[in-house]
Amino acid sequence: MSNEEPTTRTRRSGRRPGISGSRAAILAAASRQFARRGYNRASLRAIAADAGVDQKLIAYFFGSKQQLFIAAVGLPLNPAEVLPEILAGDSATLCERLEALLVEVLSRPALHERLTGVIRAAASEPEVARMMREFLSKEVFVPVARTLGNEDAAFRLNLIGTQIVGLMMARYVIEIEPLASLPPERVAAAVAPTLQRYLVGQL
Amino acid sequence: MSNEEPTTRTRRSGRRPGISGSRAAILAAASRQFARRGYNRASLRAIAADAGVDQKLIAYFFGSKQQLFIAAVGLPLNPAEVLPEILAGDSATLCERLEALLVEVLSRPALHERLTGVIRAAASEPEVARMMREFLSKEVFVPVARTLGNEDAAFRLNLIGTQIVGLMMARYVIEIEPLASLPPERVAAAVAPTLQRYLVGQL
Repeated sequence: MSNEEPTTRTRRSGRRPGISGSRAAILAAASRQFARRGYNRASLRAIAADAGVDQKLIAYFFGSKQQLFIAAVGLPLNPAEVLPEILAGDSATLCERLEALLVEVLSRPALHERLTGVIRAAASEPEVARMMREFLSKEVFVPVARTLGNEDAAFRLNLIGTQIVGLMMARYVIEIEPLASLPPERVAAAVAPTLQRYLVGQL
Repeated sequence: MSNEEPTTRTRRSGRRPGISGSRAAILAAASRQFARRGYNRASLRAIAADAGVDQKLIAYFFGSKQQLFIAAVGLPLNPAEVLPEILAGDSATLCERLEALLVEVLSRPALHERLTGVIRAAASEPEVARMMREFLSKEVFVPVARTLGNEDAAFRLNLIGTQIVGLMMARYVIEIEPLASLPPERVAAAVAPTLQRYLVGQL
């Protein structure tokens, strides 16, 4: 990537928005386009046009369509990066890595609040559900399943998704007790073996 | 319970609504009162007054506040009845009973559509989340935990809740594949051991 700061094209309004304005305009346009067309059909070209910026600026700020989606939706972690990292380590300590990830998500409001927000939006807005479905399928389930290798790998990753979504809903949206008040470590220790079984155990 | 059909009191509108009209009026009033005051603070007296019927009619149609809630919210199963039934049987076949219950829920649209509807509503409306939380705590987690007996029983029932909620969200709301298209038997077989571990396994 070039170190030169890219210049923005003249916007439809005729104003040059400046760097931070361009970034915000790209995010807003990406949110609109992903919601309207879904993940697969939203193009970087259309997003750039909607934002009134050069398409190269998207690559400059966000790298890829996948990363732009993560930023626009507000997903706090990119499962397409996190899962392969966790799977790459020693299989004897897989459960510990899953537990550590859960503790991190449950401990940091910046992580679980945004994740819960996305899940909530998917529950009430069909277009958010659709773009999440398309994103997860294209960028997570299919490629990570290839890494896992087993025949039912995509199903296994789906099952991981069910447990994460349900945990966020129960703890942060419905706030059932005692789950909502228990320390992250306690919750993570109870749930991590489920994730491990879904990933590599007998189904 | 008496076999005589109860008569309805004159409603505020001055019309006698008749039996089916009274039942519908009670359900509508219950929905309003539970949403406004939560499960604990909504009283049968206030619901009867709101519906313009004699309070005895609520007992006649629904039995208890718990059953009225189930009917008003549209929950297709009463977890306060289902869970004790499943726990009462032979512990060696607990996983099979959990699997059979899951197959039933996933096979019958009348069950999973209504369940999904309630979860969706809880995700987007804080007052639905609150009444579900109060109902589950008062009528399910606390009494069923007493039956289970172990110290962390309420937490275990919470964990069951996370997996059920997440499964409904992933299969019917976000519709991730292949989970959304797999036969109920396949999904139930993969998820039932999780429910078993949460109920009676090592956490």
